[in-house]
Formats: sequence, C-alpha cells, structure tokens
Amino acid sequence: MNRVVLGLSYDGHDFEGWQTQPHGRTVQDRLSKAIEAIAHDTVSIVCAGRTDTGVHARQQVVHFDSAVERPLTAWVKGVNNGLPPTISVKGAKLLDPEFHARFSAVSRTYRYYFYSSPVRDPFKRFMTWVHYPLDLQAMRSASACLLGTHDFSAFRASQCQAASPVRTLHAMNLFEETDHCYFEIQGNAFLHHMVRNLMGSLMEVGLGRQPVNWLKQVLESKNRSLAAKTYPAQGLSLWKIEYPEQYGIQDLFS
Amino acid sequence: MNRVVLGLSYDGHDFEGWQTQPHGRTVQDRLSKAIEAIAHDTVSIVCAGRTDTGVHARQQVVHFDSAVERPLTAWVKGVNNGLPPTISVKGAKLLDPEFHARFSAVSRTYRYYFYSSPVRDPFKRFMTWVHYPLDLQAMRSASACLLGTHDFSAFRASQCQAASPVRTLHAMNLFEETDHCYFEIQGNAFLHHMVRNLMGSLMEVGLGRQPVNWLKQVLESKNRSLAAKTYPAQGLSLWKIEYPEQYGIQDLFS
Repeated sequence: MNRVVLGLSYDGHDFEGWQTQPHGRTVQDRLSKAIEAIAHDTVSIVCAGRTDTGVHARQQVVHFDSAVERPLTAWVKGVNNGLPPTISVKGAKLLDPEFHARFSAVSRTYRYYFYSSPVRDPFKRFMTWVHYPLDLQAMRSASACLLGTHDFSAFRASQCQAASPVRTLHAMNLFEETDHCYFEIQGNAFLHHMVRNLMGSLMEVGLGRQPVNWLKQVLESKNRSLAAKTYPAQGLSLWKIEYPEQYGIQDLFS
Repeated sequence: MNRVVLGLSYDGHDFEGWQTQPHGRTVQDRLSKAIEAIAHDTVSIVCAGRTDTGVHARQQVVHFDSAVERPLTAWVKGVNNGLPPTISVKGAKLLDPEFHARFSAVSRTYRYYFYSSPVRDPFKRFMTWVHYPLDLQAMRSASACLLGTHDFSAFRASQCQAASPVRTLHAMNLFEETDHCYFEIQGNAFLHHMVRNLMGSLMEVGLGRQPVNWLKQVLESKNRSLAAKTYPAQGLSLWKIEYPEQYGIQDLFS
C-alpha cells in the first residue's frame, strides 16, 4: 500500500462543501472520482480540514491509500484532467502510513477576506462585501481577548459535533491592503462555523453597533444566542495546514 | 430627457458577451432589465466597448436616455438590486446629450492576464493558465512592432464588421508580478478578437516556437492564416475607457 498525500486548492462557490453527499456536488466526490479513474479502484480520502458549503481552500491537504504504483505526475496532472477548473491538485508525494492528513496536523490557518465599499465589486469573488465603513482598530482591540485557550461555545454552530468546545488560538491578525482587508486566524482546530461566527461578531464592533469589550462578554457567556449572525462563506478560505517539518508538506504547494 | 451615464464592472464568465441576444444571457440584457425596473420604461443602452463571450470588464462605460427623474443613487444601488453579483454599477452621473459612451471615447485599454505554472490555480479566475515557462523578454521585443498605426488584418476575426482594418496602438506593456503577468494595450479602437489574436501570436514567441521577428512578418502579411490561434477569453478584461477630462468619467469608478 502507498499512502498518497495531495496538496489541493479549490474555489468553493460551486460545491456543497468538502464532505461527500449522496447528490455528489462536493469537493470530496469530485476528487474521489478523478482519483479512482487513475487508481482503477475505490479510494477513501481523508482531509485535514473539512470546509463548508461555499468555503474556499488555498492549501488543503488530503491523503488516501492505494495499492497501485503510479508516477507522482499521474496523481497531479492525471487527477487534474478529471477535475473541473475550480479544483486543482498542486502537488503529490508518498509518505509512510504514520502520516495522517488530519491527525498529523498541528494547526490550521484560515483567512476571512472582506472589503468595505458603497458598491460591490464583481472581481472580489473571494471576499465578503460590507456596505459601511469599518473601524479596524476597534476590531483589532476586540479580537485580542480570543487569543489562547477558551471555551468557544458562544461561537459554535448548533450542529457542531465536536466533543469539546475548548480550542486554542495561536495567532490572530487583521491586515489592511489597498482595497480590502483580511482577518487571519491560526488555531489547533476550529469548531463548526467558528471563524464565520467570530467574524460576524467582530463586524458588529467594526460597524460601531457594539463596544470593543462586548466580544469578551460574549466569549465569556458561552451563549451562542448572544453572538451575532454567522458571516457569509464567500469570504472564508482555509489558508494553510501546519505539520511537523519532517513531512515536507509545504513542498506540495511550491 | 436625461442622459444617464453609468460606470460598470462585470465578471464575464456567466455571460455570452455584452450585446443583447434573444436568449437573454448577456450583460446588456441583464442591465436593461435592471434599469427598466427603475425607469418604468424601456431603455436603449449604448456601451463604450462591446465585450465577447467570457470577457470581463473592470471599467465599462454605458449611457442611456430616460425621461424619468431619479436620484443618482437609484441608478446605482437601485439598479444593483436587480443585477446578479457578477455585474455591478459602480457610479452614475447625468451628462449633456453631446456625450456618447462610444463616440466620445478617445481610446480603450485592455489587459490580458496570464500565469505560467505546471498546474492551474483555481484562484486565478481572471487569468489564462499557460503550462510552460515563457520568455517574457522575447515577448516584449516582439510586441514593439505593433505600436503605432497599422493594418491589423492578420489579427482580425473573420466575422469582424469594422469598415477598416487600420487601428492605432498608443501604448503597450508586459508587466510581471510575483505570480502572474499581464499585457496592457491601449489603442483608439480594436478589431474583433484583435487582443486575443495578438496574445495568441505573442505566446508562440514566448514559448520559443517562433522567433522574435516572426510577429512583424505576420503583421506585415495582413494574412490571418499566418497568425496563431485566438487566445482564451478568460484572461481578457476591458480595463479602462479614456474620455476627454471635461466629462469626469473617472469619477464613476472612484
């Protein structure tokens, strides 16, 4: 058996998330089909970070086991031939079976892109449009309370299946570019809808509807009904999965 | 009568070009419908530069006449409410009827975006993917012969309806960014498929399939069959329409 590891990018607009569904309109379904055409057998794919409907991935990592011997280019160019232009395998490598796309990952980084403008911009396809001006400094101050280990129940979707609501956020920054912004957040793992729920509440502060210290109150309340609405999927991208250096996962994307 | 001038952006992927068609899947059809819902009357829209199927526009300019009085925000936000997210009115103003979106324009600027990489990138939606490395310096040298006034018959689509194949190119540059390139070209006007045909032939030089001086030979031959294939619409964007300063058209996009 070979453990094949793939680096993947996708535009989430056309897919109902990562995970396989009977209707087949998911990234996993499309990828399985393309891999199986090369492997001439069924494969079971494990991914590092499941993405929801409409969420994008710049660096997703997956693995599967296959008994067949194929050159690495078959797992890249061959699989790409069976994929729509909105999904792309960027690189492939073989690793020992101790490597696991999900369990070997030490952290995940997400980015939430948005722009504030009176009118929307069709070229900002991977960003969320905010009609009103935002106070970024207030958003930065408010978000500081999220760093570290907390019970994130207030920002957890009701359908979340995680055993514990406790997560650790290692880093968080709000970056401002010429015509857009993005919020980058790195943590050991994330609850269902956690980044989009955090974003929704941060926006309340940015729009001046809530004071800076409100976010801390919501976090400490552990009460989902006190937080703001889930922000749209369109602006969210799984940006990177971090692994121990020894696996050389970044090579898949270089 | 009011002459209403709109600044427009669109992602061309979902549309069969600018110009109205019986099936209605064009930018003009979608825009007419959205404007007529505000004007409560039929309108006839004139655009500065017709775009083909799949071609994008960052700054398209259009005008129409309407007897109704509406605040400018109705022509922006009101019309946007009736448009899909892939088309956006960026600004509106009223001008004297001497202004004509097409005939008042002094030049048009197009950009052709592309990236060279062994695998495609789903996030580069407005660029054309080139599998092989390119010699950009050879492309720059080859393109120099195009500047000025020439008979561009060699780069003209067979279905082109222009009375003359002579056009004047004012400026042309090939820009290299971190992970992509773009070819920017400004001219008084363009023949049907002219930018995409030029791009196809420039790529032959960039890929080393033809020598630098070949482009000049093709231009001088005035023979379409000597030039390379038409390059894909995906990478082409109508970037800007230039007008005499007095009309303040750039304000529509600021």
